[in-house]
Amino acid sequence: MTTNRQCRLIARPVGIAQAEHFAIVDGASIEPADGELRVRNRFLSVEPAMRGWIADMGNYSAPVEIGSVMRSLAVGEVETSRHPDYSPGQIVCGWFGWQERATISAQQVVRIVRESDLPMSLSLGVLGINGVTALLALSKIGEPKAGETVVVSTAAGAVGSAAGQIAKILGCRTVGIAGGPDKVRSCLEDFRYDAAIDYRNGPIDAALAEACPEGVDVYYDNVAGPISDAVYRRLAVNSRVIVCGTASVPDWSDWPIGPRVERHLLRQRARMQGFVIFDHMAEYEAAIARLADWVRSGVLAYREDILDGIEACPDALAGLYRGENAGKRLIRL
Amino acid sequence: MTTNRQCRLIARPVGIAQAEHFAIVDGASIEPADGELRVRNRFLSVEPAMRGWIADMGNYSAPVEIGSVMRSLAVGEVETSRHPDYSPGQIVCGWFGWQERATISAQQVVRIVRESDLPMSLSLGVLGINGVTALLALSKIGEPKAGETVVVSTAAGAVGSAAGQIAKILGCRTVGIAGGPDKVRSCLEDFRYDAAIDYRNGPIDAALAEACPEGVDVYYDNVAGPISDAVYRRLAVNSRVIVCGTASVPDWSDWPIGPRVERHLLRQRARMQGFVIFDHMAEYEAAIARLADWVRSGVLAYREDILDGIEACPDALAGLYRGENAGKRLIRL
Repeated sequence: MTTNRQCRLIARPVGIAQAEHFAIVDGASIEPADGELRVRNRFLSVEPAMRGWIADMGNYSAPVEIGSVMRSLAVGEVETSRHPDYSPGQIVCGWFGWQERATISAQQVVRIVRESDLPMSLSLGVLGINGVTALLALSKIGEPKAGETVVVSTAAGAVGSAAGQIAKILGCRTVGIAGGPDKVRSCLEDFRYDAAIDYRNGPIDAALAEACPEGVDVYYDNVAGPISDAVYRRLAVNSRVIVCGTASVPDWSDWPIGPRVERHLLRQRARMQGFVIFDHMAEYEAAIARLADWVRSGVLAYREDILDGIEACPDALAGLYRGENAGKRLIRL
Repeated sequence: MTTNRQCRLIARPVGIAQAEHFAIVDGASIEPADGELRVRNRFLSVEPAMRGWIADMGNYSAPVEIGSVMRSLAVGEVETSRHPDYSPGQIVCGWFGWQERATISAQQVVRIVRESDLPMSLSLGVLGINGVTALLALSKIGEPKAGETVVVSTAAGAVGSAAGQIAKILGCRTVGIAGGPDKVRSCLEDFRYDAAIDYRNGPIDAALAEACPEGVDVYYDNVAGPISDAVYRRLAVNSRVIVCGTASVPDWSDWPIGPRVERHLLRQRARMQGFVIFDHMAEYEAAIARLADWVRSGVLAYREDILDGIEACPDALAGLYRGENAGKRLIRL
């Protein structure tokens, strides 16, 4: 029998899942039934949104069950197929979970990866849910116009770095907010932000005022919390806030409080809107084609933070929330 | 010389302006110069937004200067005209201030009132800035669809009652939130809300859940604060929040805190947007024509709360914030 090591969720955390909430187990690799296929995973994704998938509270997806393989996107080759649309050797990306091998139905495949000139790992980052989220949320909610100022939080992260660069491609002035000198340097050097602000240096109001003298036209927000409160105070008239993530708020089961936003929105006729990529899957392929062209022409850079082996899974999410990754975090198997 | 009693702002309040922040003075009625006209005011408007016009802080209009006539909309007849577009006896509505007579330039006229079959006072309420605000904010931000649930705060007020009835005309199920049994009765009897909730009866969560079993699709908000916090918790997927006013928050100079909204917006892909009528004056006449038709056909009801004489001005705004008015508050001269 083919081996299949898995990382399972074994306890429901309060707040961010830590290493002890997961266990590595030797699972079985099931033979595909009719209509199914088996994939040999090569890269597993680690996403901030996993916090929401794990939490046992209202969210936009059902919580991962205790004892089951941790839900995740992954990319790898088809090993065995009993489905007419798939054949061995094809590279596929989809909901394959934190495990070495996944026996799945075709519904779990997000797409066949056809960009054979580019690394397959990109289909979990800049050519995957992160890049597509950045492009579609920025276009649909942000509606950036050339010459506008776009501020991005978690600016060096997988979604943020793509959002900042796409805004730049569209002719905007870009300002990144990130934690620590390495990420700030990455914003400026890797992702070509016009300015970058280190939120670990204390309140960012003065730096933000200096970087955005005309105010903030678009705020691509992945964090919420005090960083966002400071950006709200700088919103320009008719500005747009994309609520894409709330990474800085460790727990919403005890609902956090903060400065009320209504007066900012009213005074500046500003708009604030939540974005969930799963509502927009019909546009996934078209978005990837556009992103791949930008990667090939060198205007859309990416960074990957690769951990090796299934053993790296349990602490990978907690590490993301500790801010230790530089770029899209992946597990290579 | 023609007499002209005026109500002037004599001190800058912290929070809501009270009677002592105003004074009634015998002012002069100036003869119109070339290009000007003099209007004999018949009704003066009292608006919640006056708080913002008086406040000495960032707002969407310059603050009323100390010692000057209180800024307000008013309606009355042209007494003397030295402008080719206006002639004595015409009814005009505009920025004429809290005074008996106004000598003004044509830029201060919002419109000539041509609905001679309807009371001229309506041009300060349902056929004025309140009705137009309700119609345009609801259409542009709320985008209500037939069958959706629309919740309105200050539901029996000048803007709220129009918003609720317009949503009903557009085929929505309407739920009003108002303070006290008289206003709740007015919501149900005068403004035909499908349900009405009294926020003075303690937390509204249970009543809201009962009135909105499928959640809230559109929230027309004039208050912010704890009432709105409760509505945010019931937002449906893809819902829209119109931030039209923040009447329940007495003061924004010491910025208030409350439950953070980001997670609601993200989870429900909801949108929250500020609306200021002055951005949309190009659509004013078309909106009034539509509103007037609804008034004539009896589907758009209104209530007026009329105080008599210029002496009523100083306490009129404070009384509005005490919630003592039933319908659009006006001063009749």
